[in-house]
Amino acid sequence: MKLTTTTLALATGAAAAEASYHLDTTAPPPTNLSTLPNNTLFHVWRPRAHILPAEGQIGDPCAHYTDPSTGLFHVGFLHDGDGIAGATTANLATYTDTSDNFLIQPGGKNDPVAVFDGAVIPVGVNNTPTLLYTSVSFLPIWSIPYTRGSETQSLAVARDGGRRFDKLDQGPVIADHPFAVDVTAFRDPFVFRSAKLDVLLDEEVARNETAVQQAVDGWTEKNAPWYVAVSGGVHGVGPAQFLYRQNGGNASEFQYWEYLGEWWQEATNSSWGDEGTWAGRWGFNFETGNVLFLTEEGHDPQTGEVFVTLGTEGSGLPPQVSSIHDMLWAAGEVGVGSEQEKVEFSPSMAGFLDWGFSAYAAAGKVLPASSAVSKTSGVEVDRYVSFVWLTGDQYEQADGFPTAQQGWGSLLLPRELKTVENVVDNELVREEGVSWVVGESDNQTARLRTLGITIARETKAALLANGSVTAEEDRTLQTAAVVPFAQSPSSKFFVLTAQLDASARSSPLQSGFEILASELERTAIYYQFSNESLVVDRSQTSAAAPTNPDSFTESGKLRLFDVIENGQEQVETLDLTVVVDNAVVEVYANGRFALSTWARSWYDNSTQIRFFHNGEGEVQFRNVSVSEGLYNAWPERN
Amino acid sequence: MKLTTTTLALATGAAAAEASYHLDTTAPPPTNLSTLPNNTLFHVWRPRAHILPAEGQIGDPCAHYTDPSTGLFHVGFLHDGDGIAGATTANLATYTDTSDNFLIQPGGKNDPVAVFDGAVIPVGVNNTPTLLYTSVSFLPIWSIPYTRGSETQSLAVARDGGRRFDKLDQGPVIADHPFAVDVTAFRDPFVFRSAKLDVLLDEEVARNETAVQQAVDGWTEKNAPWYVAVSGGVHGVGPAQFLYRQNGGNASEFQYWEYLGEWWQEATNSSWGDEGTWAGRWGFNFETGNVLFLTEEGHDPQTGEVFVTLGTEGSGLPPQVSSIHDMLWAAGEVGVGSEQEKVEFSPSMAGFLDWGFSAYAAAGKVLPASSAVSKTSGVEVDRYVSFVWLTGDQYEQADGFPTAQQGWGSLLLPRELKTVENVVDNELVREEGVSWVVGESDNQTARLRTLGITIARETKAALLANGSVTAEEDRTLQTAAVVPFAQSPSSKFFVLTAQLDASARSSPLQSGFEILASELERTAIYYQFSNESLVVDRSQTSAAAPTNPDSFTESGKLRLFDVIENGQEQVETLDLTVVVDNAVVEVYANGRFALSTWARSWYDNSTQIRFFHNGEGEVQFRNVSVSEGLYNAWPERN
Repeated sequence: MKLTTTTLALATGAAAAEASYHLDTTAPPPTNLSTLPNNTLFHVWRPRAHILPAEGQIGDPCAHYTDPSTGLFHVGFLHDGDGIAGATTANLATYTDTSDNFLIQPGGKNDPVAVFDGAVIPVGVNNTPTLLYTSVSFLPIWSIPYTRGSETQSLAVARDGGRRFDKLDQGPVIADHPFAVDVTAFRDPFVFRSAKLDVLLDEEVARNETAVQQAVDGWTEKNAPWYVAVSGGVHGVGPAQFLYRQNGGNASEFQYWEYLGEWWQEATNSSWGDEGTWAGRWGFNFETGNVLFLTEEGHDPQTGEVFVTLGTEGSGLPPQVSSIHDMLWAAGEVGVGSEQEKVEFSPSMAGFLDWGFSAYAAAGKVLPASSAVSKTSGVEVDRYVSFVWLTGDQYEQADGFPTAQQGWGSLLLPRELKTVENVVDNELVREEGVSWVVGESDNQTARLRTLGITIARETKAALLANGSVTAEEDRTLQTAAVVPFAQSPSSKFFVLTAQLDASARSSPLQSGFEILASELERTAIYYQFSNESLVVDRSQTSAAAPTNPDSFTESGKLRLFDVIENGQEQVETLDLTVVVDNAVVEVYANGRFALSTWARSWYDNSTQIRFFHNGEGEVQFRNVSVSEGLYNAWPERN
Repeated sequence: MKLTTTTLALATGAAAAEASYHLDTTAPPPTNLSTLPNNTLFHVWRPRAHILPAEGQIGDPCAHYTDPSTGLFHVGFLHDGDGIAGATTANLATYTDTSDNFLIQPGGKNDPVAVFDGAVIPVGVNNTPTLLYTSVSFLPIWSIPYTRGSETQSLAVARDGGRRFDKLDQGPVIADHPFAVDVTAFRDPFVFRSAKLDVLLDEEVARNETAVQQAVDGWTEKNAPWYVAVSGGVHGVGPAQFLYRQNGGNASEFQYWEYLGEWWQEATNSSWGDEGTWAGRWGFNFETGNVLFLTEEGHDPQTGEVFVTLGTEGSGLPPQVSSIHDMLWAAGEVGVGSEQEKVEFSPSMAGFLDWGFSAYAAAGKVLPASSAVSKTSGVEVDRYVSFVWLTGDQYEQADGFPTAQQGWGSLLLPRELKTVENVVDNELVREEGVSWVVGESDNQTARLRTLGITIARETKAALLANGSVTAEEDRTLQTAAVVPFAQSPSSKFFVLTAQLDASARSSPLQSGFEILASELERTAIYYQFSNESLVVDRSQTSAAAPTNPDSFTESGKLRLFDVIENGQEQVETLDLTVVVDNAVVEVYANGRFALSTWARSWYDNSTQIRFFHNGEGEVQFRNVSVSEGLYNAWPERN
């Protein structure tokens, strides 16, 4: 999803809007927020620890990289439908706007209409960070038929330490979608290197398993070719990733990219597993596909397991405009097809990178151990850090949503991705079409492998370090109850952590917390044991809800496996981290679950937290703690 | 060669310029013509029977076609460096401007910088005449290195009976040059059909000679795929034609063109035969390549022999700007390469389509028997008609040439191309690297095959029909002499025809005519027997010559074979047709030779014709005739 709307009228700026209109968030909200002056709501729901532009809308994150010459990590994002803007960070907590302006904007010969997502080769043309981006010549794209040549892939080279990317004065380097393929989209080029692909594409080696392993073992990233995965799909067939490989080595200055075929293709609106229980639907079009190689510690293109993160566009019935957006991941095998003709990616597990309806278009990047971030925090491995977009208005489909009144959009917190393993075993583990695979088993315990999703460690540490911490006493609830915290925060900026233990699996019990609560508002976050779901009930979130169609319930699937602790088999502990950054709420659980959403409470005093227990059954709340305050991610902004 | 200069300032128009400045062509010319007001010379040298725009410059002819719905033949040409203009004709003599404007102009998304040559599929998109043209995004192109993406190939569809071509609202259909090829150019797409290519590209058939012939015999043009030959070359390798084939049939609306490889590649600055005596040099880049299938009667994509007409760009030393332009043709074999991987064209003869220094960039088209032209004239076969450009200022390299003062450019007369055969035999025939091939021989006579080049029959008939005819008596000259015609024309618009017979081959004798002659000016056109050349000596052509660097001698190679007539072996008769259309002079000989040039005489009274004989040796002048007047090709213009 790309924001292609024109820049919203911000003539007077947020501060001016605030001055010209007095908003009273101790009284009921106006009946129709979307008729207020622009930016009137600018500060009401704005987060402080998140990545977002100083003013205006945000779209897909993209174009991240670590500048080898400074060690700074650059975060990019589509901005106001008019190109890519960005910021730098040395700590994944505080950010500096890269410029007052855009890194790159449309209007050139290759991109007269729009600039869409790109990815950066850190040592690219002339050894300079180089952006391979989707240059757009025709719109709309989200309708059928696809206009030939709408999306091509072009190069731009960093200048002034990455404050600008200068487009090469030439045509696109991938000037057309694959030959005679009736694509649904052809965008979001993602650049990566891969030992496995290098080896498999060497025909001599690929036919022999031992040779493959030897070649992988001897592989080095230095001088390895770059690959590009372009996201899209094929009309009447299904979503796909189109794979390309750099041709001619770096001396060719990244001019030519050899097409290797659709290395991943799914059937339209099919899903991983039964009805997409664990991993949504593949939709009819892939977007923002990233290809990464994860280990238990981090990222390694030589030894890591191949993962893909991707947005899937779905719809009730194509060729309608896409109305469903799932933020997914998949991992699996890379092999040479039976015809020995092309490399293919086959998922063996898949899941949600974020279960939130509004979470989409993730784009990440390798964060090397040599980066300023890792050097400062002492992380000695390369990691993969992913940034997810949180659409503010349901992909522009929320009728009457006060987009211009809010006046901004946001990304979610940086997340580290890696593989995680759990020790368990029984029928809960042995299922098809799930978001994990089973490794070794001794018939009592099995090793599971799935995608680990956590807030980046530096980010999380900063969130907790900058708060004023209060702990609630451990507590056991057995019957329905809503119990206010002994000490609730006085603001809407905090991190809530807690562990919940329960025994009964099939119970209709719901157990968790209410946050942003007052007499008139509350948002419930709970685990529902019967259907293994983490739920965010937003039906009472906001007094402004009647004019803000954002009150539907969010939920995601999280299986609590059986584990053995102290010789006892018991249900895995639910380990919750909830970040509340004003209206942006991110729920993390057990190192492998994320659900992010909006909770746009209205009243100033909606800051209570309450234990929430609905139904019969014992749940132990342990290690419940609130760190209030967060940090200001943008200390240099006025 | 494309004219890319901006439109010359024609604000006041030709008539106004004439009114504001009195030019006296009975007195000596001004010392520096290029300092006169624009268009001052507009009428001085302007032809009347030629194809040229009402005002302004002309570039490559292109985009010709017969509209199936009207039968009219459409002639197109680059105009004022700002797109393609054109005209229609029902008789190849008189023309109607297609519109007051251009058929197509640059400035779209695919062609922000320029529109170069295109070719028309008469029944194309939506069964409408469809132009496949070179859409230009970056200039200059005539320098090294080639800017990636400078030239792509795009579609535009005829509207209003061909008065306009609407660009498809999409990207190019050939969006990039061949993968990773370092091209010198990639332009001038030429569309054609071919039985031989269809058959050879069917692998099952191609391996068996008998099957090939059977398949060709059973071939039908209906629903046959179109091919595109794109002209250009490869840096450090040489000039080439890039071959493409329509993919997906007509239902695909001509969207996809499969690349079949460089079906013709020559080495940089190499030539056909010894030093290019008969066929110039291949240069470093091909332009405006046409592919045609000629028979003795006309054109037939099923049975015809494959010919290519092409412009070759050469240079003393690449990567300099091209300074040599040869207007060539080649014919040969089409076969499948030894690796069975691609079809290849191999010349077996080659020559000049026009020997004139300024003649270049020919583009032709099949003129079907169903066309209005052929129906009126009663021609019952399809023919190939070719139009050649005559650059006015030596490809913009003539220093001080009064381009803006002349204010126009011109094409040459339409020419029919077909294969011709001669009956002869001896060592004159048996030579390598020449512009003919030897067919059957009975040891006394041999059948030669070469390219026939004549003024289109309707054009020639109209030229002769509209003149006032005077005949000179036959005459034999033996010693040096210049003998004025008994009756010279009183204007500079005429056709001179004559036949010359001689016996001595190796003599330094020069024999022919002086035209556009007066006391102060003359242009000699003669055959020089010793070196088998037809020469146009322009050293005394114009009193304006000192300020008009256009006085060099032109010449072309024409071998007069030995023939047997009335049982006697004798030298073939030189059969001359010279069209003088004011300053545009075209010399045709023996149905297989053309040399066109400028003869910009100054004085009004330079209209004499004289027999010219320089040296010792007998020449008989027979059937000498002058048809004075010509016709006005543009009766509808003011």
